[in-house]
Amino acid sequence: MTASLFARTLASAAMVEVFGDRALVAAMLEFEAALAEAEAAEGVIPASAAAPIAAACRDGPGDIDGLVAAARSAGSLAIALAKALTAAVAARDPAAAAYVHWGSTSQDVIDSGFALVTGRALDLVERDLDRLIAALHALARTHENTPILARTLLQPAQVVSFGFKVVAWLAPLVRARARLARARSGALRVQLGGAVGTLASLGEKGPAVVRRVAERLGLATGDAWHVQRDDWVALGLEVALLCGSLAKIGTDLALLAQSEVGELAEPSGEGRGGSSAMPQKKNPVAAMTAISAGVRAPQHAATLLAAMRQAHERALGEWQAELAEWPSLFLAAHGALVALADAMERLDVHPDRMRENIARQRGAVFAEAAAALLVPSLGRTEAGALVASLAARAVAGEGDLRELVRADPAFATIAAEAIDAAFDVDRAARAAGSLAARQLGRLVRSPHS
Amino acid sequence: MTASLFARTLASAAMVEVFGDRALVAAMLEFEAALAEAEAAEGVIPASAAAPIAAACRDGPGDIDGLVAAARSAGSLAIALAKALTAAVAARDPAAAAYVHWGSTSQDVIDSGFALVTGRALDLVERDLDRLIAALHALARTHENTPILARTLLQPAQVVSFGFKVVAWLAPLVRARARLARARSGALRVQLGGAVGTLASLGEKGPAVVRRVAERLGLATGDAWHVQRDDWVALGLEVALLCGSLAKIGTDLALLAQSEVGELAEPSGEGRGGSSAMPQKKNPVAAMTAISAGVRAPQHAATLLAAMRQAHERALGEWQAELAEWPSLFLAAHGALVALADAMERLDVHPDRMRENIARQRGAVFAEAAAALLVPSLGRTEAGALVASLAARAVAGEGDLRELVRADPAFATIAAEAIDAAFDVDRAARAAGSLAARQLGRLVRSPHS
Amino acid sequence: MTASLFARTLASAAMVEVFGDRALVAAMLEFEAALAEAEAAEGVIPASAAAPIAAACRDGPGDIDGLVAAARSAGSLAIALAKALTAAVAARDPAAAAYVHWGSTSQDVIDSGFALVTGRALDLVERDLDRLIAALHALARTHENTPILARTLLQPAQVVSFGFKVVAWLAPLVRARARLARARSGALRVQLGGAVGTLASLGEKGPAVVRRVAERLGLATGDAWHVQRDDWVALGLEVALLCGSLAKIGTDLALLAQSEVGELAEPSGEGRGGSSAMPQKKNPVAAMTAISAGVRAPQHAATLLAAMRQAHERALGEWQAELAEWPSLFLAAHGALVALADAMERLDVHPDRMRENIARQRGAVFAEAAAALLVPSLGRTEAGALVASLAARAVAGEGDLRELVRADPAFATIAAEAIDAAFDVDRAARAAGSLAARQLGRLVRSPHS
Amino acid sequence: MTASLFARTLASAAMVEVFGDRALVAAMLEFEAALAEAEAAEGVIPASAAAPIAAACRDGPGDIDGLVAAARSAGSLAIALAKALTAAVAARDPAAAAYVHWGSTSQDVIDSGFALVTGRALDLVERDLDRLIAALHALARTHENTPILARTLLQPAQVVSFGFKVVAWLAPLVRARARLARARSGALRVQLGGAVGTLASLGEKGPAVVRRVAERLGLATGDAWHVQRDDWVALGLEVALLCGSLAKIGTDLALLAQSEVGELAEPSGEGRGGSSAMPQKKNPVAAMTAISAGVRAPQHAATLLAAMRQAHERALGEWQAELAEWPSLFLAAHGALVALADAMERLDVHPDRMRENIARQRGAVFAEAAAALLVPSLGRTEAGALVASLAARAVAGEGDLRELVRADPAFATIAAEAIDAAFDVDRAARAAGSLAARQLGRLVRSPHS
Repeated sequence: MTASLFARTLASAAMVEVFGDRALVAAMLEFEAALAEAEAAEGVIPASAAAPIAAACRDGPGDIDGLVAAARSAGSLAIALAKALTAAVAARDPAAAAYVHWGSTSQDVIDSGFALVTGRALDLVERDLDRLIAALHALARTHENTPILARTLLQPAQVVSFGFKVVAWLAPLVRARARLARARSGALRVQLGGAVGTLASLGEKGPAVVRRVAERLGLATGDAWHVQRDDWVALGLEVALLCGSLAKIGTDLALLAQSEVGELAEPSGEGRGGSSAMPQKKNPVAAMTAISAGVRAPQHAATLLAAMRQAHERALGEWQAELAEWPSLFLAAHGALVALADAMERLDVHPDRMRENIARQRGAVFAEAAAALLVPSLGRTEAGALVASLAARAVAGEGDLRELVRADPAFATIAAEAIDAAFDVDRAARAAGSLAARQLGRLVRSPHS
Repeated sequence: MTASLFARTLASAAMVEVFGDRALVAAMLEFEAALAEAEAAEGVIPASAAAPIAAACRDGPGDIDGLVAAARSAGSLAIALAKALTAAVAARDPAAAAYVHWGSTSQDVIDSGFALVTGRALDLVERDLDRLIAALHALARTHENTPILARTLLQPAQVVSFGFKVVAWLAPLVRARARLARARSGALRVQLGGAVGTLASLGEKGPAVVRRVAERLGLATGDAWHVQRDDWVALGLEVALLCGSLAKIGTDLALLAQSEVGELAEPSGEGRGGSSAMPQKKNPVAAMTAISAGVRAPQHAATLLAAMRQAHERALGEWQAELAEWPSLFLAAHGALVALADAMERLDVHPDRMRENIARQRGAVFAEAAAALLVPSLGRTEAGALVASLAARAVAGEGDLRELVRADPAFATIAAEAIDAAFDVDRAARAAGSLAARQLGRLVRSPHS
Repeated sequence: MTASLFARTLASAAMVEVFGDRALVAAMLEFEAALAEAEAAEGVIPASAAAPIAAACRDGPGDIDGLVAAARSAGSLAIALAKALTAAVAARDPAAAAYVHWGSTSQDVIDSGFALVTGRALDLVERDLDRLIAALHALARTHENTPILARTLLQPAQVVSFGFKVVAWLAPLVRARARLARARSGALRVQLGGAVGTLASLGEKGPAVVRRVAERLGLATGDAWHVQRDDWVALGLEVALLCGSLAKIGTDLALLAQSEVGELAEPSGEGRGGSSAMPQKKNPVAAMTAISAGVRAPQHAATLLAAMRQAHERALGEWQAELAEWPSLFLAAHGALVALADAMERLDVHPDRMRENIARQRGAVFAEAAAALLVPSLGRTEAGALVASLAARAVAGEGDLRELVRADPAFATIAAEAIDAAFDVDRAARAAGSLAARQLGRLVRSPHS
Repeated sequence: MTASLFARTLASAAMVEVFGDRALVAAMLEFEAALAEAEAAEGVIPASAAAPIAAACRDGPGDIDGLVAAARSAGSLAIALAKALTAAVAARDPAAAAYVHWGSTSQDVIDSGFALVTGRALDLVERDLDRLIAALHALARTHENTPILARTLLQPAQVVSFGFKVVAWLAPLVRARARLARARSGALRVQLGGAVGTLASLGEKGPAVVRRVAERLGLATGDAWHVQRDDWVALGLEVALLCGSLAKIGTDLALLAQSEVGELAEPSGEGRGGSSAMPQKKNPVAAMTAISAGVRAPQHAATLLAAMRQAHERALGEWQAELAEWPSLFLAAHGALVALADAMERLDVHPDRMRENIARQRGAVFAEAAAALLVPSLGRTEAGALVASLAARAVAGEGDLRELVRADPAFATIAAEAIDAAFDVDRAARAAGSLAARQLGRLVRSPHS
């Protein structure tokens, strides 16, 4: 059933279905049907053979556990499937049975089947990626100028706006959307090359059959790519890259939802994020799901890359490893997408806590701005050192950095307005907000500008 | 159902069962039953509560898809399970329902459940590892002195015996057997710490309850190890290490089974290793399965390691990632073990082809031995260069290296017997064979000598 | 010095230089110089400050070990570098020293420096990728119709042409060339965002300064991408993908160069592929280098992906991990590229051995073609079974499959010419060759057709 | 120079030295010297040959860049080294030159050299691991009963003691210490097998020579393990496992050092953790270093595992990949160890902030304890739900949970002392503290109890 029990809790039900046993075998049968119909249309096999083959394919997978057991000794599930299909066709039309799987090889059936279900997987990914993008877009606009601490190396840095922060989550997703579309078009190609990739059994009719099969299946046409995994793996890598961007969002969300920070909270509700032991718990489940995808996806990507070393005209082991791992990436990515989209659509934002956390810094996060006022007179190093010492006093509880700056003789010649401006929370937020607004505008127009 | 369709074709049916949905949930319920019984025995909960809880646990998992769906929003499958179990106990005995899951937390249930099924997984691994070790042992004895080319960097090197080669496959497995046993004892500990690992709700009775639960479940006792994943991951790493050793065997097997080499063949038989396109094909399915495990397992191990970075007293994402990936390692390893054990028990060995491949080297693989005869007179560099030039002529078809050596003036003073000995295939094989026999003897006595 | 001793033996000297200590620090100083000049031009800093800063930058890195030591406690090499640069500028012009590093942050300097050297790394990759593509192109044309065994699952399958095999090596490289160019344009962007990505210290002049810095450095312009690693990691993934395609070539090369196969050999020559022990050895060093890249690159890619989870506005640990691993990918990829290009430009091809290996199959590799003749009369299953049994007899030494087919009553009605055609080695090679020629033509026109 | 610029900033200077070019080559020369001396002592080579060889070895590596360049075409650095050594010996004693490297192969020299330097690397690891263990031990004792929030899924959970938390950091390190010692003894074996692992050139004297070489080098004796990488990789995996445990500590440290949490701070001081832009910054550099090791090490471990698939008697690519990556693990691990040990020895602990953060939870973290009081009367589910609703009111600002509990009619029959005990911060801390003290006691006695 697609994945182990705990892997399924991190995946969406829809994606579990897409890569389910029956869906995969059904996709392989779609290929067999399309192949028979295309070959009949091109006169490669008798016209009368196509209909019974297609009908048997529509009947769908039979005993899947039996197929798996046979595959263990045969070395390929497609061999067992072709045999079962041949029997099913023979029951309808013995003559047609001869033309099942004609001219193709196990890898044609399996790779084309994977391409079909992967198309459906990408539809889901794109749908929920759009949903997440829309939710973040709305958040970015609403909080364009909401002040929040920027934090670097997990320490308070300066003041930006929450909208600015959201745009940094959003931009990689917009680019991912564009990259996925491109990778999809390169990867979802029909696989049809026959025993060794030459389509030898189809003779002159090969290219025409490939075109017809591709068209029926809604896949791109092209040469067989049996041991040329680059375009296929490139698609997997894009999905892993998306997981990386989602895990970054999940990490930020988890950090901002810490009780001591309290700036964000995942939407709560019946059954969400409880604890089996602690009645008061509200766990950030979406962040958890996104982070877990970020922990797992890099290695799934590595497996795809490691499996590219496919010997000669069909691999012994590497291709089979790739097939075994392929669904995991999509399960992890879509689980994270759905969780984050759900969370972001109803995110609890606490602008008051954002301001409070800024205030607790006692002005120290404006140290760079304060130091800049002195650079013309003292130079960068000395100005920095002076303000650092004042900031240390502020952090130690001697007062707000702005007051300490005002009182310091080095700032005697600096206008009070300039000092106030340097410490103005909303001014800093608006500066970040207007930058974010421009970035958002560009993203809408072109993801890679 | 434990794993995706194609991952299952690379796994054994038995291991698919061990990590199956029902088995995992049943193991979690075993823990809940043992917990209730232990707590009743220690007077932590009313004595009357234990029986109804244990009975409900024995009824087994109910609607697993429902649990998974609830886990997606709750963030933990154990929460949904505890809820369902509470309802089931309430139907039997409302008063007992209050004491379901008493004092424990989600992670206690899940980790202990995983420890239980992992014990069963290791039983399978050890059983088939023993079988593979026995098969290789027999091969090593039978072919102790069977000459075969040793190959380095995929080029012919010198002559050894097939038994010597087999011992190099076998020794890492014997050590793996010992290492797995040790890692098992460290890792299969009961997990019972309550909400934050302190067993706070059990007060003074904590340690006694832990001991009783551990004893009932056949697990080792010990402190809770919620975010201390080292012993657990160490076990996973041993399994990955085993996959590495199996993949090496699979790789050698595949290479020796190449048609042009032809020294080994996997046992053939009905449905083994056929092709959906090519009637003549006999594919080395066991090698394929072992190699695919070697491609996948390193990444599964990396995920376990990456997931060790578990924050505070329970992780947000990392632990969940670990749970999702854990079964994959055992599925891959046992699939490879069973495939190789089956193959090695009935391996086709072709000593004639081994000799033939040696003969086709025209003596060049004895170049080092020949050069050694000249080192006292010419020095190593010059002796090597001379023999290299003779070997090049042999390879180019000018004759056997032994003849060229005999004819070369530089060898004029070397006794004919010495030259013959240097080129003696069986002598070289026997030397390797007697070394192999000694290694085999030591392995039997102590795996790390 | 860029990489450890043994890693360097697998890398090119040129790439070792590109990511060398001095080159990296020099690139960071190029950024500082460009920044000062851009800020002076925009009036952000005094016009007089630019020249002394640029001059000090041109003086180059000083004590690199000192920088590394300081970076260990500072947490960033850029801090130590900025300090050293400030001192160097102060020695020239104390007033200018105040404006060193103005408005930027450590990550700006380091990421921009990496973008600069990575551009140079890509120049090398592209140069030798073109060289390898050209060498393979020539091989594909020369051997368009040279018969060779196709092998699937490491077993003989059918006959194709060597040119057809080479095109399967070549096509992923042509696509890699196109993908690298695209990824490069997305990734080699200037990094300039100041402390938290808002360019706060530059006020209105921010965008203009960014444009000027980008222009001077030959990098693309754009928003700061501090924790948005997607475009950058995407470039790294393309390089890892290239390694996968190179490792496939290396694997095929190694397999075909096995003594028992003998169809290809790496060019030999002084010092190439010897052994310290065996005078006769000729090791396939290029294959070795390509395979080692294929073993290592997947994990380097995984590290880049794992490091994407960068908290807030600058990461604590992940970014630093990415920087530490980034050069490895390029070192491995370029080492493999150079080795394979060198080998393919002077590859020893043995068409005689290719034919001999086909002949040793006794016609069995034409089993599918022979069976196809019977499908209309017997059906696919029965025809396959009959020919499989004949092929087994052929392999067992009872004769050539063609003779057994001719003698079999089931083939009595098949014309002798049809049988001969089915077993015609050159006909099979030409069919594959003409397919390869078409593929080659398309590749030249458009890499993704 | 061992590693790239930024990788060195994450490593200790001492470990950079251990795996430095000169140290590696010197270790290989130590092997050559020991080999010659052992062979002379056993009469395998003339007694007079040993001294000049050993003397030339002591002269140390010559032109390392030249060795690397030669290794690129030879395929092995040991070949180039043996050649250079032969020349150096010849200059001293032409007759002795014939016996350089006698009977051994490239892999013998290189693997034995790596075993030697790895022993030194482990000395460093063990030294600083002991230092970190000691520092944590002291912290655990000092803060045995210091109350701190336990946090699960990054949310407040219950109250424990800081000492309890420290023991959870410490225990995996104590076990790592024991596991490393065991893995070390299995892995640091001399490698000496000659061309194909049979020590063919040494005849009967083989075992005696091995023993002598091992003894001189301080390595364990044993059979050649050319393609049996299990014990060696097992050692690497232990180091990766240690990195996982260190990264967990680094993660907790970083989280507790967040300004809003403020419970811990890394020691500050001149040049530690500053920012190139922000004067006020104090970055947690030790946490950063440990986290970066946790990001990188899993992939290094995966490479070692992936490289185990070593064909026949010497690998083509996999062994070379392993050599290239091996030092990275030790560099990352030791960098993290030193950074954490330095930080923990002078850690700033803020018990006041720990109490303050508990207080800000308004008693909600005692919800489980409060609910437990009602379970006998209401049952677990209802008691949990009631307290959850009170906790929600407390979190919403309606008052402390203890007050809400006291006021709730459901608690009317519960003694005030019982309620007070349930909400007693110090009581909770002491309970955790005494558990921690027991765990600490056991750790001292036996790491795996």
